[in-house]
This record gives sequence, structure tokens and C-alpha cells, in this order.
Amino acid sequence: MTLTAHSIIAGANAEAPSVEAACSAAAEAFATYRATSPEQRSAFLNQVADEIEADRSALVEAAVSESGLPEARIAGEVGRTTGQLRMFADVVRLGDHLGVRLDPALPDRTPLPRPDLRQRMIPLGPVAVFGASNFPLAFSTAGGDTASALAAGCPVVVKGHPAHPRTGELVARAVTRAVAAHDLPAGVFSFLLASDGQSGIELGQELVRDPRLRAVGFTGSRGGGLALVAAAADRSEPIPVYAEMSSINPVVVLPGALADGDVHALASAYVGSLSLGAGQFCTNPGLLCLPEGANGDAFVAAAGEAVAEATGQRMLTRGIAEAYTRGTSALRDRAGVRVVAQGASGGEDAPAPQVVEAKTLGGVTDEVFGASGVVVRYSDAESLVTHLEGLEGQLTATVHYAPADVEAARTLLPVLEQKVGRILFNGWPTGVEVGHAMVHGGPFPATSDGRSTSVGSLAIERFQRPVCYQDVPAELLPDAVRDDNPWGLRRRLDGELE
Amino acid sequence: MTLTAHSIIAGANAEAPSVEAACSAAAEAFATYRATSPEQRSAFLNQVADEIEADRSALVEAAVSESGLPEARIAGEVGRTTGQLRMFADVVRLGDHLGVRLDPALPDRTPLPRPDLRQRMIPLGPVAVFGASNFPLAFSTAGGDTASALAAGCPVVVKGHPAHPRTGELVARAVTRAVAAHDLPAGVFSFLLASDGQSGIELGQELVRDPRLRAVGFTGSRGGGLALVAAAADRSEPIPVYAEMSSINPVVVLPGALADGDVHALASAYVGSLSLGAGQFCTNPGLLCLPEGANGDAFVAAAGEAVAEATGQRMLTRGIAEAYTRGTSALRDRAGVRVVAQGASGGEDAPAPQVVEAKTLGGVTDEVFGASGVVVRYSDAESLVTHLEGLEGQLTATVHYAPADVEAARTLLPVLEQKVGRILFNGWPTGVEVGHAMVHGGPFPATSDGRSTSVGSLAIERFQRPVCYQDVPAELLPDAVRDDNPWGLRRRLDGELE
Repeated sequence: MTLTAHSIIAGANAEAPSVEAACSAAAEAFATYRATSPEQRSAFLNQVADEIEADRSALVEAAVSESGLPEARIAGEVGRTTGQLRMFADVVRLGDHLGVRLDPALPDRTPLPRPDLRQRMIPLGPVAVFGASNFPLAFSTAGGDTASALAAGCPVVVKGHPAHPRTGELVARAVTRAVAAHDLPAGVFSFLLASDGQSGIELGQELVRDPRLRAVGFTGSRGGGLALVAAAADRSEPIPVYAEMSSINPVVVLPGALADGDVHALASAYVGSLSLGAGQFCTNPGLLCLPEGANGDAFVAAAGEAVAEATGQRMLTRGIAEAYTRGTSALRDRAGVRVVAQGASGGEDAPAPQVVEAKTLGGVTDEVFGASGVVVRYSDAESLVTHLEGLEGQLTATVHYAPADVEAARTLLPVLEQKVGRILFNGWPTGVEVGHAMVHGGPFPATSDGRSTSVGSLAIERFQRPVCYQDVPAELLPDAVRDDNPWGLRRRLDGELE
Repeated sequence: MTLTAHSIIAGANAEAPSVEAACSAAAEAFATYRATSPEQRSAFLNQVADEIEADRSALVEAAVSESGLPEARIAGEVGRTTGQLRMFADVVRLGDHLGVRLDPALPDRTPLPRPDLRQRMIPLGPVAVFGASNFPLAFSTAGGDTASALAAGCPVVVKGHPAHPRTGELVARAVTRAVAAHDLPAGVFSFLLASDGQSGIELGQELVRDPRLRAVGFTGSRGGGLALVAAAADRSEPIPVYAEMSSINPVVVLPGALADGDVHALASAYVGSLSLGAGQFCTNPGLLCLPEGANGDAFVAAAGEAVAEATGQRMLTRGIAEAYTRGTSALRDRAGVRVVAQGASGGEDAPAPQVVEAKTLGGVTDEVFGASGVVVRYSDAESLVTHLEGLEGQLTATVHYAPADVEAARTLLPVLEQKVGRILFNGWPTGVEVGHAMVHGGPFPATSDGRSTSVGSLAIERFQRPVCYQDVPAELLPDAVRDDNPWGLRRRLDGELE
């Protein structure tokens, strides 16, 4: 069965949009698109950014209305989306991601001559990207996954998120204009939305099963991510799935930080991070580890006051609000859990933020997407390590620290390194910088593939694989590995960078 | 149920060896081992090479007797094994694999300051390595997978191959001496063998299911590899499996190469590569694509003569010889298949080499491990591309080429790039150079993860993942990302190499 989709931008058949049409167009476009030079591909990515910027006011209006997120936040997301595309334009022009390695022939080596060996990275092929609900721009249609896949040389088929169809379609039209402006084949980018009454899940499954696709980028729920991982593994040719799924982002407050710091300011910053954007961030601080004793008690009390004063904000979708309400209610009903405070409801689909304190971590470490915090207490460094070692893989871990905590922090760091993709000190995990040193990833189930990041320039490596050319005649060598180095790449000669 | 193993070298409990003991020792050793400096780890790897070299004569004797492979080949494998370890010692000392990236703080940036961000690669954790039957040294106990995992900072638990238990144990003792000489925890390296009457498969499954292991390296059959992939995916925390499994390594002879070249010499070189080491190479040229017409006919006739003169060599195990006999017999019985020639049997477990010609590729593209070749003919460049596009992923593709073939080769190259990990011209795929530009990998089912290589220095990246440090105080930063760069690493500053 081939599903039809509500809309397709670009691709082969706008009258009868379908996974089939989009994937077939992507496969057809691949050879041409991957053959673009660094300059061409870089210019195309910059143009995508320009086209999105040109639609800024329409985009902001649509995204605010569809997501319920504040205008300032959405405006910032436009900048992040275009900034991300421009960063990858620079990365592509530099060309280091091609990882060129040359081991020249040694015809006189004994006992055997060495052949001429040249290596470069090539793009995997067409990539499916699933738009995320919580970042209608920066992690959706032309968000991080799309930008890094296009940068690697992979055509992209986006499954738009049903929570922001209009925003998705506007962005898709902007990308499509850039494709046309650079005379690229239309199949370089397609955008599919489930039609009315059609299940988005079914559409997504069909997409992942399409034999022409070579990788999947996804940001969303653990259930959704695991379903895609299973579908991809079940193909006759399995493909990698980069699913960013579930994290409660432990925050550790060390005793010195509590003794030295302003407990009220710290607690209020915690609640600020917890309730930012209705708590709808992958990096939301869902778990706080606090020392036992008076300072910790004071922090809990202060956090309770701050939460009690907070009001729920409209969540992205009714389904997300309902899941939050179920999750927070289950937490409250759990034995050993005490409600520290709840805020006020902000109306329909805007449930109250909540902080609870749990005696143990048993049963309270599943992510509740939204402004729901769990506090757990520790007696000493050893019991803290026990807490942390019991956790699943996470995107981030945060440590609040003063110089007096140096020994505890030294013990903690290797433990945290085994659990997370990013370790941050004296800050809050919400807010992910887009740059070269960022890691937005981490061990399972934070992601389905902890060897990579979905934010930052390293993300381009997810959509590549190495190929070696042995004794290939000069007239046939790809530009990246030619002797005269026409792209001016930094290359590795006999293992050392030139 | 915890299985006991026949023997364990190092690890926690030599009296009651088991997966449990080995994995628990590996997990315990991990923190110490991964904290070694580049100099320390590099010296340890060199010592492993020295210890293996010190046992050279005993090793050669054991491996020749257990594998039936000629002494010259095994002696070469000792050199390859130690050379591989020394290459990784150099890679570790250089430190580029740590991929350090620094995005310094921008406290005055508007609208938001940028935090201080630092990234490095860390080792995944303990790794299970499955010894391969066909390379008792270079792909077994201290072979490529072990060397690259140890280089990355991962303790290794080897499941020795039952076809060469004595060789494996000798190598394991050499590694263990190096571990002791460098005062490393014993769990850095363990070696397990299934005990008499115990199924090696069961032992391997238990190993892959152990929650302390973080990755798997395997070289062997498609069935064996897929079973490990399934077991790893089925864990509550799935882990990556690098299985190198199945490849028929298509060789394309272009018309010009046939017109220009010495057809007899070419055919005889083909049969030489096909029957080298009883054909027991992952890169064995199992499929040859030859033009229709008189020159192609002459090649087939010459290849037939060469095969008819060849004698079977003893295969690695009785099971492998039996599978070869079944596979070649099934090929002969297939409709549309004509036997070009068979050689002579070389006695028990030394079945005859064989070349057949097939009308189409239907049903003849499954790997038959051993000296079994299939020839298929093509009428023009288009039919050749159709042949190749119908193939599954492969480790290698070989092109025999003369300048007159340039147009056909240009058409072919992008097709081959999508199918294989290594493309070679005017040579034969057997013989894999260990170096920096090598790729011994390729799309499924050549490997279970085509984004990597199991031979060459890039293999170290399979056992690492990135971690980001945000605003971590100077006194807590790992050496690799400290401002004063004590290891003298080449680092990326704001995206550009320093």
C-alpha cells in the first residue's frame, strides 16, 4: 500500500503527493546533488537561510499561532534556524568533514609494494527527517537534521509535524525556492504531511521502510523513536536512525554551592529553567539532586514558593498537555512522593507546573514532558553517585559547584561522562548553543545512537561514510582526493594532517 | 544462567572463568584504563606488539597447525598484527582521534552570552571482540578490532575462535604480560573460550547481552553477525555492533582492459586471487563481470584452464569445507549455470576450486566462502550498471580498465561508491593494506554498520563518542581540553583547526 500525503512541496508529483513520489524524486536527485562542489552546496545552504529570512514575518505569525509559543521565542528560533544553515554552509566550504586521507603508493616497499590509497567521506543517500513539535523551526522542516543532511550531500524528505502544518509548509516553500534558484533537481527536498484522517505514524513508518532512504533523523518521544528504530532494523537493508528521545537531565547541587550561593536565587533560576516554554525542552531539568540538611530544605522551600507563583502556559498540543497531566498525577500518587508545590493552571491545555520530592528514584525517572520536576536528596558523595549510576543515558547533566566541592566534583565527572552527552556547570541545561563544540546527544535512551550529536557542526558526520580509492587512475579520481587538490582541502598524508 | 568458559586469561577469576567474571573485571578496569595518557596507552600498545613478537615462533607453529594455512602467510600475519598495534600506538600518541573542539566563551555576545564549550571523544566502555576463523592473528585475539578498541581506551573481552584455541591463548598471554608490565588492571583484557561441549554461540550471546559491554566487534558469517546484531538490539540498552559479514566483491573487466591486456595473464591472476588461502578471504573475488564477445570468451577459457590446474587447499575447519562443498554444488545445479571448470580436490577438507558462468545474477550472489567464482557477462555499459545496481552492499569492487574505457568507468564510479567501501583498479581485492586511508567496510550486508572501517586507523572512531563540557571550571577540565593543552593536541578553535 502506498499512502498519499496531504501536501508535497517539490518532489515528483505535486498532484498525487506520496512517500513513493518523494523518495523516488530524492533518489533521482541524489547523484546530481552529491556532485555539487563545496562552493555550490555552501551557496545553496546560505540561500535556504536567506529564503527563510525573507518570510520571517509570515513564519513568526504562523509558528506563534500554531505552537502557542511566545513571539520572542519564535523570533529567536528563526535566527537559530538560519544561523544553523549558515554554519553548515561554512563547514561545507571548509571541507574538513570530507576527512580526506592519502597514503601514497610505495612501489619499492618490500616484501610487497603499497598501492595508492585515498579516502574520503561520501553522503549516505536520501534522508528522512521527522519534524519535532517543540521547535517548529529549529528542529523541524529546515532545522538541524535537515541542515546537516543537506550539508553532507543527502536529499531530504521531511515528514512535517501535524502540530504546525502551516509553519512547515512555509519553510518548505522557502527551501524549494532555494532549490530552484540553484538549478538543483526538485527531489533534493520534499515535504510530506499526513492528510486529514490519515495517521502520521503510518506515514512515518512507510517513509522509514522506503528502500531508497538511507538514514533517519527524528526528535520526539521515546515510543515514537523506538518505533522508527524497530522499523529501520526490520528492513531488508537496515539503516541508521538518529532519534533524540528522552531525557530528565539531572541537576546536581553540591553542598558548597548551596552554602556559598544565594539559595533563593538558585531555586528561582531552577524553576525558571523548569517552566521555560512550558517545560517543553528535551533538556528540561526533570531531576534535581540536592543534599540533605538545612540548606537543601531551604532550597526546596524556595523552589516551592517559586513554583506556587508560576502559571501553566499553553502546551504545544492537546495530546502533550494530556500526557503531562497524566504523568504529573501519577507522580503525585506514587508512594514516597511528596508534592512540594504546584502552580496555577493557565487554562485549557495549560496545566500547572509542579515540583515533587521523592524518597528514592524508583519509578520517578521516566520523562514527563513539561514543567514537572522531581527532587531527590542525597546524604553524601557516595549516595549521590549511587543515584546517578542508576539513571539511564541522558542528554545533559548539570552541576552546581563551589571551589569547596572540588573533591566531590572530581569523583562525579567520570560518572557523568558515562551517562550524558553534555556536562555543564553552574548554569541550566535549557538553551542549547549551536556551535562546533556542542553535543546534543548521549547514551540510550537519550538518543538511539550516542555516538553522535544532533546540534552543532559535528552532526554532519551522521550522514556520511568513508570510501577508499585504491590505484584509481588520476583521470577518474573525485576532486576531493585529486593530487592537485582543487578544493584546497586540509588532508591527512600518511596519517598526519598536511 | 551464567556460562563458564574453558579458559580465561587475566580477568577476575581464572579458577572459575565466565562471562560474568570477564565483564565485571572489564567494567572495573575501565576507569583506570581510559584515564591513561596518550603516552601511557601508546607505550602499552607497543608493548603488546613486542610481547607478540617475542612469541613469534611458538605462535607461527600453533597457528599453522591449527589453521592449515602456509607458514609464510602466518608469518606475514604476525607482522600485520604487530604493525597494526604499532600504528594505533602512533595514532594514540598523535591524539587527533580525540577530536578536541573549543568554542570559547563570548560573555559580551548579544542577545545572549555564549558559554565556554569544549568537546572531546571518550571511549564507549568495555568492548566484546569475536575472533575470526580466517585470520587467526590479524583479526582475532589481538587483531584489528582489539587493537582499535584498546587504542580508543576500551577494555576488551575476546571470545576466542574455537578453530585456533592454542593460538588465541598464546596471544592472550602475550597481551596479559603487557597489561601487567604497564601496571594496568587485569580486566583491561580477557580471553574466553567455550569449554568442551559448550556452544560457542551461546557463550557469544551471553557476552553480547552483558549490560557492562558497550560495543561489539565481529568478523564472520552473515548468520553469526546478524544474530549478534539482533541480540544487541534486544538489550534494554542497545549497543553498536560492528559485524563484518558477507561480500562477493564484484570484479568488473571493461572491454578496453581485455582488448589491451594479456588475457591469459589476467585470467591467471584472477584465479590466483580467487584461490589464495583456499579462497578464505572476506575480499575474495566471488563475482566477475565480463563483456560478451570473443575477448570475454577467451578470458573464460583461460580462467577455466587455470582453475582446472588448481588443487584445493585444506580449509580452516571441517564446517567451512562442508559449507563450501554444499554451496558450490548448489551453484552447479542451478538452471542457467554452466560449470567453466573445477580443479582437483586436495584431500579431506580441501575441496576443489570452481568457476561457473551464470546467465543472470538471480540466485548466484550469495557468498560461498572459499575458492568459488561466478562469471556473468554483460552486453554494454547499461547492462553492466543493471548488474551492479542489483547487488547488495560489498566490501570492495574492482575495475579492470584501460584508457579507452574512460567513459564507462566514469559512469560506473558513482554506482560503485553507493555499493562498496573500497574501489580498486587493475588489481585484485584480496590483500588489505593496513593504513590510514584504508576502508574495510561497506553497506549492509558487507557490514552491519557501513559508516566505519574495521581495518586502518579510522577504526578507532568506532569505539568513541563525543562529550561536551560547558563552563566547566579549569581545575576540573580533562587534560585533552585544558587551556594549556598539556598533551600538545591539534584542536579545532571555533570550527577551524589551530
